[in-house]
Amino acid sequence: MAEATLTISSKNYSSWALRGWLLCKMAGLSFRETMLPWDDPSVRAELLLLSPSFLVPKLTHRGIEIWDTLAIAEYLAEIRPEATLWPTDPAERAACRSISGEMHSGFSNLRSALPMNLKAHYPGFKVWAGAQADIDRVTTIWRDRLKTSGGPFLFGASPTVADAMYAPVATRFRTYAVTLDPVSSAYCDTILGWAPMTEWIGAAQEEPDELEELDVEF
Amino acid sequence: MAEATLTISSKNYSSWALRGWLLCKMAGLSFRETMLPWDDPSVRAELLLLSPSFLVPKLTHRGIEIWDTLAIAEYLAEIRPEATLWPTDPAERAACRSISGEMHSGFSNLRSALPMNLKAHYPGFKVWAGAQADIDRVTTIWRDRLKTSGGPFLFGASPTVADAMYAPVATRFRTYAVTLDPVSSAYCDTILGWAPMTEWIGAAQEEPDELEELDVEF
Repeated sequence: MAEATLTISSKNYSSWALRGWLLCKMAGLSFRETMLPWDDPSVRAELLLLSPSFLVPKLTHRGIEIWDTLAIAEYLAEIRPEATLWPTDPAERAACRSISGEMHSGFSNLRSALPMNLKAHYPGFKVWAGAQADIDRVTTIWRDRLKTSGGPFLFGASPTVADAMYAPVATRFRTYAVTLDPVSSAYCDTILGWAPMTEWIGAAQEEPDELEELDVEF
Repeated sequence: MAEATLTISSKNYSSWALRGWLLCKMAGLSFRETMLPWDDPSVRAELLLLSPSFLVPKLTHRGIEIWDTLAIAEYLAEIRPEATLWPTDPAERAACRSISGEMHSGFSNLRSALPMNLKAHYPGFKVWAGAQADIDRVTTIWRDRLKTSGGPFLFGASPTVADAMYAPVATRFRTYAVTLDPVSSAYCDTILGWAPMTEWIGAAQEEPDELEELDVEF
């Protein structure tokens, strides 16, 4: 029997659901998934990029509810210290939290202009200047970290919270055929080849696409 | 001699600077403040609400740089456990991180429509529906927490990270004369009467207003 429940929405569209799910996998938590229905108003708002949802992702464990992605990361790091979700070195941990926080609170142009859509591919997609500034900041972070750590993940041999936070961005760069430097491109390959990512992406490909009924264009 | 440096921008306009500064005060850290110049492009972008800045607030301590507000909170909680920046009970701590995370990643309508401006007062300010939805969510969180904890702070007798995260919102509610329920209004009074807040607000009142030269309307 699963020890926890993770409430998520679309596997194809919800980048926050993906982050929360990756963190649970990284922590080695046994959990069952609960999919919120597509016609739930908060899911609809989230998928239409109108607002973040405080219902997704939500982790329920031992009667405790945690509903923010970074809060889930900190909770899992506390109950599963052996999973080293954060780097053990204090300076590295501070850097990992700083760049995870940047992803959590920022990059709104990237989010709105290049929403996650794992089934899609748009060669020749035109990136506007505001989103390009976000892309430049993301790849600067990646290059700095990979140079320091040696890769293949941002803080070395094993994935940390930061990799979960930036994983949806790697999929967006491929979906929208964003031109990348070789280091950033190699990091996207690392993320897209990472076992939990291939599992999630496979499930997303099989997901019925009810968002089309919401009459949204991506 | 101060043991740390906190880089901030405007005391009147920067809600993130205020949060980082409150956290350092709550942790009992001795720090000196470095004000970024108003003509720094990233400060300008931040104050014009064009983008969050990864330069503000930034804490430098023992050679470690931490530049995201929640990352600063976690760092301070680690080096100053006796300050109990997070509640000691695991369920309360998870709730505190969840609502702090909501403030960190969400409420964009509230941010853009009612920017922090400690010197100003706009009686009769018209709140549009999108910002009102954010206000309703904030006050729901406040009422839930205060009912559970008994107040006067969100998690009881002492302030936690969550109070620092929501403190700028309390100032916005007063600046824009937002109509509040009695519980939420009393919580605003608590925040605005809290010693470090009165210190910050006093300094903001004395700040030369160079933002006017940027030709921005608030």
